[in-house]
Amino acid sequence: MSLLSRVTSPAELRKLPAVELPLLADEIRDFLIEAVTRTGGHLGPNLGVVELTIALHRVFDSPYDRIVFDTGHQSYVHKLLTGRQDFSRLRMRGGLSGYPARGESEHDLVENSHASTALSYADGLAKAARLLGQHDRHTVAVIGDGALTGGLAWEALNNIAEARDRPLVIVVNDNERSYARTIGGLANHLATLRTTQGYERFLALGKEALQRTPLVGQPIFDALHGAKKGFKDAFAPQGMFEDLGLKYLGPIDGHDLGAVEQALRQARNFGGPVIVHCLTVKGRGYRPAEQDEADRFHAVNPIDPYTCLPISPSGGVSWTSVFGDELLTLGAERPDLVAITAAMLQPVGLAPFAKAYPERTFDVGIAEQHAVTSAAGLATGGLHPVVAVYATFLNRAFDQVLMDVALHRLGVTFVLDRSGVTGPDGASHNGMWDMSILQVVPGLRLAAPRDAEQLRAQLREAVEVGDAPTVVRFPKGNVGPAVPAVERTGGVDVLLRTGRAPEILLVAVGTTASACLDAARLLLAEGFTATVVDPRWVKPVDPVLPELAAAHRLVVTVEDNGRTGGVGSAVAQALRDADVDVPVRVLGLPQEFLGHASRGEILEEAGLTGTGVAAQTAVFAKNLLPTRGANPRHAG
Amino acid sequence: MSLLSRVTSPAELRKLPAVELPLLADEIRDFLIEAVTRTGGHLGPNLGVVELTIALHRVFDSPYDRIVFDTGHQSYVHKLLTGRQDFSRLRMRGGLSGYPARGESEHDLVENSHASTALSYADGLAKAARLLGQHDRHTVAVIGDGALTGGLAWEALNNIAEARDRPLVIVVNDNERSYARTIGGLANHLATLRTTQGYERFLALGKEALQRTPLVGQPIFDALHGAKKGFKDAFAPQGMFEDLGLKYLGPIDGHDLGAVEQALRQARNFGGPVIVHCLTVKGRGYRPAEQDEADRFHAVNPIDPYTCLPISPSGGVSWTSVFGDELLTLGAERPDLVAITAAMLQPVGLAPFAKAYPERTFDVGIAEQHAVTSAAGLATGGLHPVVAVYATFLNRAFDQVLMDVALHRLGVTFVLDRSGVTGPDGASHNGMWDMSILQVVPGLRLAAPRDAEQLRAQLREAVEVGDAPTVVRFPKGNVGPAVPAVERTGGVDVLLRTGRAPEILLVAVGTTASACLDAARLLLAEGFTATVVDPRWVKPVDPVLPELAAAHRLVVTVEDNGRTGGVGSAVAQALRDADVDVPVRVLGLPQEFLGHASRGEILEEAGLTGTGVAAQTAVFAKNLLPTRGANPRHAG
Repeated sequence: MSLLSRVTSPAELRKLPAVELPLLADEIRDFLIEAVTRTGGHLGPNLGVVELTIALHRVFDSPYDRIVFDTGHQSYVHKLLTGRQDFSRLRMRGGLSGYPARGESEHDLVENSHASTALSYADGLAKAARLLGQHDRHTVAVIGDGALTGGLAWEALNNIAEARDRPLVIVVNDNERSYARTIGGLANHLATLRTTQGYERFLALGKEALQRTPLVGQPIFDALHGAKKGFKDAFAPQGMFEDLGLKYLGPIDGHDLGAVEQALRQARNFGGPVIVHCLTVKGRGYRPAEQDEADRFHAVNPIDPYTCLPISPSGGVSWTSVFGDELLTLGAERPDLVAITAAMLQPVGLAPFAKAYPERTFDVGIAEQHAVTSAAGLATGGLHPVVAVYATFLNRAFDQVLMDVALHRLGVTFVLDRSGVTGPDGASHNGMWDMSILQVVPGLRLAAPRDAEQLRAQLREAVEVGDAPTVVRFPKGNVGPAVPAVERTGGVDVLLRTGRAPEILLVAVGTTASACLDAARLLLAEGFTATVVDPRWVKPVDPVLPELAAAHRLVVTVEDNGRTGGVGSAVAQALRDADVDVPVRVLGLPQEFLGHASRGEILEEAGLTGTGVAAQTAVFAKNLLPTRGANPRHAG
Repeated sequence: MSLLSRVTSPAELRKLPAVELPLLADEIRDFLIEAVTRTGGHLGPNLGVVELTIALHRVFDSPYDRIVFDTGHQSYVHKLLTGRQDFSRLRMRGGLSGYPARGESEHDLVENSHASTALSYADGLAKAARLLGQHDRHTVAVIGDGALTGGLAWEALNNIAEARDRPLVIVVNDNERSYARTIGGLANHLATLRTTQGYERFLALGKEALQRTPLVGQPIFDALHGAKKGFKDAFAPQGMFEDLGLKYLGPIDGHDLGAVEQALRQARNFGGPVIVHCLTVKGRGYRPAEQDEADRFHAVNPIDPYTCLPISPSGGVSWTSVFGDELLTLGAERPDLVAITAAMLQPVGLAPFAKAYPERTFDVGIAEQHAVTSAAGLATGGLHPVVAVYATFLNRAFDQVLMDVALHRLGVTFVLDRSGVTGPDGASHNGMWDMSILQVVPGLRLAAPRDAEQLRAQLREAVEVGDAPTVVRFPKGNVGPAVPAVERTGGVDVLLRTGRAPEILLVAVGTTASACLDAARLLLAEGFTATVVDPRWVKPVDPVLPELAAAHRLVVTVEDNGRTGGVGSAVAQALRDADVDVPVRVLGLPQEFLGHASRGEILEEAGLTGTGVAAQTAVFAKNLLPTRGANPRHAG
């Protein structure tokens, strides 16, 4: 029986003699490599925190003590040590979540996979413990160096530092990267800390020298008295943290179990806010990951752990790469185009552009707000920025899109990858909000391309707009076959008519086009004729749409976005404003947080497949069409 | 002829001999006190930056050099020096904006009044100048110490610091406060800088002493070599900025024109990112402001400049104070209630609660994201936080409301003051977005009370919800008279019926109730009968509403919010989902950025007065009711 299988709780872990821990760490690494390469998931980050997580659960008494993991994909080891060792359906419906999940365990607190939140949660938890008189209850936040570049982390640090007597342990898991290498002044500062591990040795020597220094009057005495900190800074300028009022412990070798445990115990007993700076190696112990300088196996699709080749070759062309290639082409034509990413250069497809135009590419760190507002500055300065970001992460910068870009009528193009359902990463990764919240932004234009050709065309149209924000959104995964139009009226592509004067107008948003085409054919078999249109630009609503709607007896909109306030709502509003009262029905994702499952499973359950759209539309049609004449003022 | 009236441009300013500048500063202060006390506006912040702004325009060549003001209410002096000296209609329709406005002057760049954006804009502008080869073009950001607590500023600093050869001057206007006193570790750090003005003197002495210190082997030599920085830190721990890679100049007396000019010239010539730390006094030169420790006349309504009494006493009770008093009462009943503000304790009405329960009140600084996520932590820890914030500023934390609170089903109550039209502060202060973007948040409940009694009642209902975010929103200004209900059906209050089976259902959101009541009476005079209802909780839509709608022939919704995706859209969606196809029309604010004017002017122009609602509804009714029978399936 393995050691790991006996560690079914933190209490069991604490019973283990220290000498057995390295074996446990080995077993955990073997388990992770075997399990995660089979199912896919976040491998590198978890290999890097094996010893750290063991130490955390030995020093702190979870769940009474609260351990908050920032960007919870680094919680696999935590799961293993808190009774969850069945990884066979990791990130699949019914299996373990790829993030902490309160439904799985009382040891989990924060399910959100958006970065930089842990310090704020921890600040709130520590305040609550204090107010409730739980003075023996410890709060720990585990945050990566990458996540520290996010503004929310700064806001939290500023607050945590203020209450010097409120205990809170901040473990900085410093692997010099988030998804990619961490950028910015903070990263340089942390690097300085990392390269000064000899500091403690030097400090002792320095103190001695000081004690021998002759005093030259009061000012110099004070100066030398203060020089303890000066010496520290010369070797390890943790000044930044200490200037804020945070005690700093480190740097600690995050793979030295004894050292980490000791530092954590010291931090636990400190009685105020303290930073424990742990140096770890992403992908530690798995050679293919350690050697992958690009992202150290941040997340993997299922692969063979020995050959490191994908088990099911995808064999298609991703939306991301279509965008990336077209941006590269545009970059050659338009020297004013610049690209911005928030620490996701590769995943959002900017690598080709960055390689060709490094000086025109900006990785701002995990800092979506700055990505957007610095884009506003670039646009004010005469350039056209393309901000490429996962759809769900743009929510972080909603105010900046609204106030810093749109209010200023600036030409900034937002490219939203992973929009709509993403699936296995669960609720906080689904990009199902953008087409709703961006509707309110005055002047903003939003495109949802249905195929690769449209993506290329609409990206070109987007970057032509110089006086308003533009958005191009597309989903995760591979582009499907081309979906040709039979004609274009206004800006709207008509994709199919299944009769001479069809009764139903199916408004297909983006990649729902193919489902809508399938649905139209299925509906015809039931005796309902339909026109399928793709409005291409879904905001503003094309003025042709109310005209088209008036020529039908039922409008059904279909979108890979929450049903509330999305394209369907906007179309309905445009119809009302045009006094077109043809009934409208809106199909989209239920306005709920969607648990992890495959993209296909979720779309099917939401009724956004061809059969799903057909079945729902048939019900609407049977309800409405037999009993009502067309609106006499608008009949086609 | 005054000196000021001759300074019609920065070029004229630069021609003035230095000896005349103190007189100019005096004239500017006299002008501001006289003009702003007459019209109302931001007085204190502008009195504090007179010398700083003069120096900026003498050292930099605006508009070629770009000066970005953070939180542009500190731009009045800048306006005066760039040809705008008619303050007679400041913040009124047709008059000067209270913020920079590109329509007014080529010297203005950023109109957004949300804090902490300037560094990001400046970073983008500096990058653009570099890419476009404009190497002689300088970029300056002027930011208050308060705004530095915002996460966006941190994200920007982290990026600015990275490019050590890209010139960018950051002027920190340090008056120890934003609206209120600045909080947090950063504030303490800045305070340390402020109290160490003797540092430069000491440094010279320290260097001397070091040169006399005997060398004790290589490590000590290195240590002492590094001790220059150490000494600096002992007296002036600017370590934080320097550790990030930013050169630091200061602290400078921001009211010493010569010193500020000299520092700015030094910064301009530095060739990399540099912080100029200026100490200023908010309200400088106006005794009533200097003595007002609470907020130093941050913004004033029109007052007599000598007696300091309001010219037009308001004589009413504000929404803010009704909330503040009720929260105080609730605080006594519920020891688990805690209150959070983002640097706006007084304006959002938390002062009474804070006075009674200081340990249960948290001012997190200008840090809306942290306000929300730390609230999530407090709720996880067993308390019920009330986050009181201006409606427009909650946009900064949309992602945190969605992911950190709602996804985790936490009981956090958001109280949105200044929702809907605010008016004189212009586009970025109007709180016209909340009822749209919050519609998408699963589980969230949103109340729009119509009068003081409802505000008290709904606040109580809101804090009772322990497993979802709740929102209570109300406008700027004074509560009107009580608006009684004739009955309650479900959660919906029926306010009026002007017939036995009225044709029109008027759905009044929040404070539009009185306009809707007026409208119903006006409509009756035109022969249209109406039911006026207040749904009270506008999200989720009360299931009674579709039933009520089905008993009418036209539904008109009225809200003090953008028309797109707001309550009207949600009601229409609820009707569609219930297969109720009674025509709906949505009245609200046009989905545009609204220029500064009075709240009344804007509401009237938007047609949200009694006559406006009546007139628009009559047009709908005339279009729809004579020519159409009621939906036969749902006739009342």
